[in-house]
Amino acid sequence: MPQMKIGDYLFKRLHELGIRSVFGVPGDYELALLDLVADNKLSWKGNPNELVASYAADGYARVNGAAAFITTFGPGELSAYCGMAGHYCEFVPVVHIVGYPTVNAVRNKAIMHHSLGDGRFDMYEAMAKHIMAATTVIDHPPYAASEIDRVLNTMMRESRPVYIGLSVDIAYEMISDVPLSCPILMTLPANDVALESKVVTEIRSKIEQAEKPIIIVDGGAVRHGVLPETEKLAELTSFPVFTTAMGKSGFSEESPLYAGVHTGAGTHPGVAEALESSDFVLWIGNYPSDFNTGEFTTVVKKEATVIDFQRFSVSVLQSLNADLSQNKLIRAVQKVTWNPYPPGDFSPSEALKQDFLWPTLGDFFRPGDIVIGETGTSAFGLCDSRLPKGVMMFNQTVYGSIGYATGAIVGVAQAIKESEGKWKRPILVTGEGSMHLTIQAIGDMLRYDLKPIIFVLNNGGYTVERLIHGKTADYNDVAILDYSLLAPAFGPAFESKYHGPIKTNGELSELLKEPSFGNAGCLELVELILEPLDAPKAVIKTGAAINEFNKAKAEKGHKETNAVRVQGV
Amino acid sequence: MPQMKIGDYLFKRLHELGIRSVFGVPGDYELALLDLVADNKLSWKGNPNELVASYAADGYARVNGAAAFITTFGPGELSAYCGMAGHYCEFVPVVHIVGYPTVNAVRNKAIMHHSLGDGRFDMYEAMAKHIMAATTVIDHPPYAASEIDRVLNTMMRESRPVYIGLSVDIAYEMISDVPLSCPILMTLPANDVALESKVVTEIRSKIEQAEKPIIIVDGGAVRHGVLPETEKLAELTSFPVFTTAMGKSGFSEESPLYAGVHTGAGTHPGVAEALESSDFVLWIGNYPSDFNTGEFTTVVKKEATVIDFQRFSVSVLQSLNADLSQNKLIRAVQKVTWNPYPPGDFSPSEALKQDFLWPTLGDFFRPGDIVIGETGTSAFGLCDSRLPKGVMMFNQTVYGSIGYATGAIVGVAQAIKESEGKWKRPILVTGEGSMHLTIQAIGDMLRYDLKPIIFVLNNGGYTVERLIHGKTADYNDVAILDYSLLAPAFGPAFESKYHGPIKTNGELSELLKEPSFGNAGCLELVELILEPLDAPKAVIKTGAAINEFNKAKAEKGHKETNAVRVQGV
Repeated sequence: MPQMKIGDYLFKRLHELGIRSVFGVPGDYELALLDLVADNKLSWKGNPNELVASYAADGYARVNGAAAFITTFGPGELSAYCGMAGHYCEFVPVVHIVGYPTVNAVRNKAIMHHSLGDGRFDMYEAMAKHIMAATTVIDHPPYAASEIDRVLNTMMRESRPVYIGLSVDIAYEMISDVPLSCPILMTLPANDVALESKVVTEIRSKIEQAEKPIIIVDGGAVRHGVLPETEKLAELTSFPVFTTAMGKSGFSEESPLYAGVHTGAGTHPGVAEALESSDFVLWIGNYPSDFNTGEFTTVVKKEATVIDFQRFSVSVLQSLNADLSQNKLIRAVQKVTWNPYPPGDFSPSEALKQDFLWPTLGDFFRPGDIVIGETGTSAFGLCDSRLPKGVMMFNQTVYGSIGYATGAIVGVAQAIKESEGKWKRPILVTGEGSMHLTIQAIGDMLRYDLKPIIFVLNNGGYTVERLIHGKTADYNDVAILDYSLLAPAFGPAFESKYHGPIKTNGELSELLKEPSFGNAGCLELVELILEPLDAPKAVIKTGAAINEFNKAKAEKGHKETNAVRVQGV
Repeated sequence: MPQMKIGDYLFKRLHELGIRSVFGVPGDYELALLDLVADNKLSWKGNPNELVASYAADGYARVNGAAAFITTFGPGELSAYCGMAGHYCEFVPVVHIVGYPTVNAVRNKAIMHHSLGDGRFDMYEAMAKHIMAATTVIDHPPYAASEIDRVLNTMMRESRPVYIGLSVDIAYEMISDVPLSCPILMTLPANDVALESKVVTEIRSKIEQAEKPIIIVDGGAVRHGVLPETEKLAELTSFPVFTTAMGKSGFSEESPLYAGVHTGAGTHPGVAEALESSDFVLWIGNYPSDFNTGEFTTVVKKEATVIDFQRFSVSVLQSLNADLSQNKLIRAVQKVTWNPYPPGDFSPSEALKQDFLWPTLGDFFRPGDIVIGETGTSAFGLCDSRLPKGVMMFNQTVYGSIGYATGAIVGVAQAIKESEGKWKRPILVTGEGSMHLTIQAIGDMLRYDLKPIIFVLNNGGYTVERLIHGKTADYNDVAILDYSLLAPAFGPAFESKYHGPIKTNGELSELLKEPSFGNAGCLELVELILEPLDAPKAVIKTGAAINEFNKAKAEKGHKETNAVRVQGV
């Protein structure tokens, strides 16, 4: 019976999942394991710290379908818990491989470095269980293959992170390679046919009764990979299609059906009117979080019937589409008569304003771009950017950990390099305060030749927090950096371009028009100077709503709609 | 009955513990709370990320006796878990205050940002419990004062971190100020007098029988604040006094009794001989971790009697000293005849070598310096630096999280500023790979005018890991930075000095001799160029031992000595 090392078995499984690059930070409990990475056609992309590694893995997984990163026991894994919780919250399948001390050190309760010095070794996995879909620590070879397969199958089924601890002396133990012949399941279990067709018929009858039906493409549609089915559904029904902040880029904004972004209280007037007037919503992957709803202020009326498609609904959508194409809907196409974008009227000589920035940035985006907007004014503001078909855009709408975007672009850009031309430009849009959390990631962007285009909003601190509370408070200040020196400091050997400081609307237009800009074949960083309290009107409104909510006593909560939740059982 | 805000109550307690600066990162769940910081004579020292905040608090607490930092629920706290585990492992009293969502959002299981989106809010505290001495989440005003006092008393008694969650809408609730009249206990409970005197007599009789008695000052002596008692004990007994890596600087190296550093297999020959020949050890605060013992290779012989003083032993030591001063020991002083430091013979024109660096650096240190040596060659190497009396030196010997030192120096330097001249220069010694993890802390060093002296060992990656495993492996490479640009990039508005690159022994000697160096009144950064595989001989030896240990099967474990553990009960 052919034998293989446990470490090789693990890495072959990762390769099977489409993973080609592995992120992480080395530590002495995992060094021997890292020797096996290259043997299995995986490329090691080390990072300056573990939080950056976890964010890079997040970005890589959102583009590539799955990702892995490796850290050491204790400090290494704990430094990545914030990233892992984000994977869990936002349905990103990432495996965190943790190098453990020797089985024997654990048995002897030795006071190893990275432990708490009290002979315990199981507490970190216990902590991780709270933010993982599955965990295992492999300290006994006979169970290695089945444990690895169990957690990886869970990761793909639930689209959530998992944790594999591997003792440093176990990675080289030999096991049978037979289990490899049975692949990790990449598809969801099929629905009960009878029940599904009952559900489908029910939905169609509701569709036929609906007077003002609409489709809302939410975060779940993106995270759970039902965008093709969603596009087909729109085509078959010709209903107006809205997105949310989290669902942004989930539907082509060049389509005549595209109707704008639902951002609750912050929704633009024409768009809000259309949403309010609807009596029937096909809501794909609804994720009613505070930031995704303008602080629980959905403008869909309570009386509207909402069909909520959640994960495991893929085949329901497929069957619904099949049913609808057989039984054509006889109804007039509802024209989108309103403008999904805010009107712009700004003088070029004026100081740069966010209400000008976001629509203008939209014109710069091209098919093949992958854009990450950092939590804060960037993520909210990008809702006002018109996206060409073929742009992927995302942010951490629900978990909302600042610093995420600067780390995640590393993984996104690596996935773009591996996409054989399917994807083209990695674009990062971030506030400067957020960038400071993970700024060392710039070193990776340069040494791995990732060529991101970076827009840094330099507005003297945490603007979105100023809008919520403490407009001029010093706790919302951040260090004042020289952004022109970042690339030279973090990668003096590599080419890079700095553009800025951009202070007026005109200067931004000029830069974006320059044919050379955005194609320099190296990292390009644009510094945008904005006023500390400037933000899109919608964001200012939402900020105030958040502050009110945070003060709120008993009465308030999150709104309930009379949703019919389709789990596709 | 006078009333006060819960937030004010909490901050008044921090002030009572000697805390004057609070570190952290703002988030919308804590913004309102931050408005109360200045009202209570505390100064807010915001940081670029939460890991830096937790490390800064660690450094501040080691100098000042206690520290506090504030983060937001979820991403903020999780990003600091690595720092908190380090506080726990190394007995550093730090309170982590976490801004929680409103009580009502929690009750309604609202999908708030920073939660996992599943209606749970208790998982983060459950995770923190594994690495905290005590935790509480305050969501009900009547219990606020007693809960705050409970966890702060635990923090001071156990010298370990605690966690206080405070819902954003609770900080402004009014409570009675009466509990403030009862202070937080700063001293340990007294021992049973009869039992203690029995223990003391027993120890003295053993001392009198001992032929070659010695004292070893270990990490616990420093962490548990028994250095004055230890100095007195040495004076009364005139036994040779050794330290460990973790106990380094715990005893004056100018004393004729000072005998060198116990680093297990790495111990210098003369020192090792003296340790091996001893039959009786008064071991103050023994912490037998791998890195503190040269990978479990203590050179104290198994047969030696070891009296191990642990936390809660303060009063035992005091009584022992009292007893010894009444009953004078009639015995000859044991002369320290060996050289605790390695001999140096290097040509100035030669490439800089670590065996030259560490003794040379020792001559640069002055009374009032506080030196942090990063885990790796710095911490190990500094064992070979002769310290003048009045120098404090520490590192994270047991937890060993790289990146710690660069964050911790921020808190150390802040504590120095508040020490009214008791302490003078903050000195950071770190490898470049470690510095990369928390490099944004440089922005704080500049904006808070902390004036550290920074020695960066630029040796092309993780040298200590190369010595353990993967000498030339690319996973031990790191990004190559321009260290002369770091201060200009992170604080262009502030003065700073760059010295280097230092490539030869002679260049280092010259720099350290320059009267202007080390007194520039601003941040000074020295870049030391070293060969990737160069390290003190002792470290090379230890690295190999660690690799062996990591491969080890069944037989190996941590050595047991026949210790008599004095817990001072």
